[in-house]
Amino acid sequence: MLSEFDLIKRYFAQHSCTDPRIALGIGDDCALLNPSPGMQLAVSTDMLVSGRHFFADADPYLLGHKCLAVNLSDLAAMGASPLAFTLALSLPEANPLWLEKFSQGLLVLADTHRCSLIGGDTTKGPLNICITVFGELPPGSALRRDAAQLGDDIWISGTLGDARLALASYRKELSLAPLEHQLAATRMHQPSPRIALGTALRGVAHAALDISDGLIGDLGHILQRSGLGASLHIDSLPAGPVLARQPLALQRAFTLAGGDDYELCFTAPVAQRAAVLAAGVSSATTVTRVGSIEAAPGLRLLDDFGQPVTLQLTSFDHFSSP
Amino acid sequence: MLSEFDLIKRYFAQHSCTDPRIALGIGDDCALLNPSPGMQLAVSTDMLVSGRHFFADADPYLLGHKCLAVNLSDLAAMGASPLAFTLALSLPEANPLWLEKFSQGLLVLADTHRCSLIGGDTTKGPLNICITVFGELPPGSALRRDAAQLGDDIWISGTLGDARLALASYRKELSLAPLEHQLAATRMHQPSPRIALGTALRGVAHAALDISDGLIGDLGHILQRSGLGASLHIDSLPAGPVLARQPLALQRAFTLAGGDDYELCFTAPVAQRAAVLAAGVSSATTVTRVGSIEAAPGLRLLDDFGQPVTLQLTSFDHFSSP
Repeated sequence: MLSEFDLIKRYFAQHSCTDPRIALGIGDDCALLNPSPGMQLAVSTDMLVSGRHFFADADPYLLGHKCLAVNLSDLAAMGASPLAFTLALSLPEANPLWLEKFSQGLLVLADTHRCSLIGGDTTKGPLNICITVFGELPPGSALRRDAAQLGDDIWISGTLGDARLALASYRKELSLAPLEHQLAATRMHQPSPRIALGTALRGVAHAALDISDGLIGDLGHILQRSGLGASLHIDSLPAGPVLARQPLALQRAFTLAGGDDYELCFTAPVAQRAAVLAAGVSSATTVTRVGSIEAAPGLRLLDDFGQPVTLQLTSFDHFSSP
Repeated sequence: MLSEFDLIKRYFAQHSCTDPRIALGIGDDCALLNPSPGMQLAVSTDMLVSGRHFFADADPYLLGHKCLAVNLSDLAAMGASPLAFTLALSLPEANPLWLEKFSQGLLVLADTHRCSLIGGDTTKGPLNICITVFGELPPGSALRRDAAQLGDDIWISGTLGDARLALASYRKELSLAPLEHQLAATRMHQPSPRIALGTALRGVAHAALDISDGLIGDLGHILQRSGLGASLHIDSLPAGPVLARQPLALQRAFTLAGGDDYELCFTAPVAQRAAVLAAGVSSATTVTRVGSIEAAPGLRLLDDFGQPVTLQLTSFDHFSSP
């Protein structure tokens, strides 16, 4: 069996760590970073557990992609540019084939976003993947959850719900045609972190976060932290292309409380509408206006006619769900 | 059962995050750090798995201490001052008593070293604790593994082997008197990260690392990375107070290949002997000179008479050991 050191060297030593911001990469007690002068550092950690966040037999290439993507998504939601990441990996066994594909999926996405793997840890144990990602942004430009302002528009990047639809299909809760299932599953397995949009929204948007546990719950964090309420035009919510062919009730349920979308939900002043659309264009990312920040606490769901809609939906919570 | 958000708020929101270097702590997509101007950032990650790195029924207070201590030890080994850390936690259940004690053990040590908990992740799953720690140091001052120089003295902080002795006692490989067991077990459960010594050695020592897998294996990393060899005077190795009362063969085995010591092994020029001793005094840490860096590759073990000693010892490896 491969030793811990051989394993790290063979699969995770990136070919070319030529980024001058990385003073020392893998192989010492610590990695050393030289953050760009005057920039603030953004840090986020996500832990993915087999059987909970992914199927035990998940394609390792896609899994490698997704583990880093969900972390990059947190940087995007803050408006930060990727810098580097660490990877801690607990594995039942050192399977060369699995490691090769996993590291490929991970490092291809890392290279795409100029985010160097600078260190980590490997150990034997139940499959668990923990990534901590570092980004940079100018001080004062972060898109914080507590920064929504009264009157702000609420915007969503991309589309929502196809990842949740794929999960429903895997669980046999509904039946999709093979091509539909495949399209939806791609959204579930290969989320695109909205880094380019996030950085383009610096100085344009007020508050932002990424939608991982469902729009209603996640938007609720912005409202709670900002001490405000909101109305959402639920029929304006951009359903994913596969979900858009499903019944309206399912579209509403999965756009509002789907989970695993990794799109940005952000608020911006009405005066910035053109700038938001321009940020969407420059980052090649669709942006859709879906509601408004209001003074009255709570979240109101409105249909196309401006009429209140009552839905029984909850957001995902790791400890209150079974 | 507590929700994920209640859990984080109740047990892990530190009372007073007044460190001006922490621009934004727990609760957003990312934490935001303002590293001190002109300083380099040191980053390290360790993942601890139940049944592998600690007993499943380990005292949660001690476990909280140890998880952070082993990460701070990596900062110490680089000569970095603590700044902040993230915590990712996979738990079979949200047990309030366990969480209260675990977080206490963790945060007391964090406060001692002015190392703020700035973010993390919690999820349901097999018990797994992943910490990423951040420190600061002046550029060019890091104690790197590849920096040993021909003729350097080799030094060890504190004492070695008592943690391994405690493990042997837990495993009933030998029998210790109750008080002896307790003293040795404290070394196993509550390692003291040598932060003060590590920072005092900036500009004094060349190479350093922390001894986690056993001196022979860990010193081997310095030798390999520096392209040099060494002689160790094995009867000069500072055995822990409990181990020092055991037979010589056991002292040699556990000081050389014990593991879990979290002491620093470092090299420094002969001309810096007084400065090393002064760093020991200023940091209230014993330092012992145990050998020399030499040109001939490999590690030679010498007894008190300068005679070569042959021992069959191996270092710990997570994937090659059962």
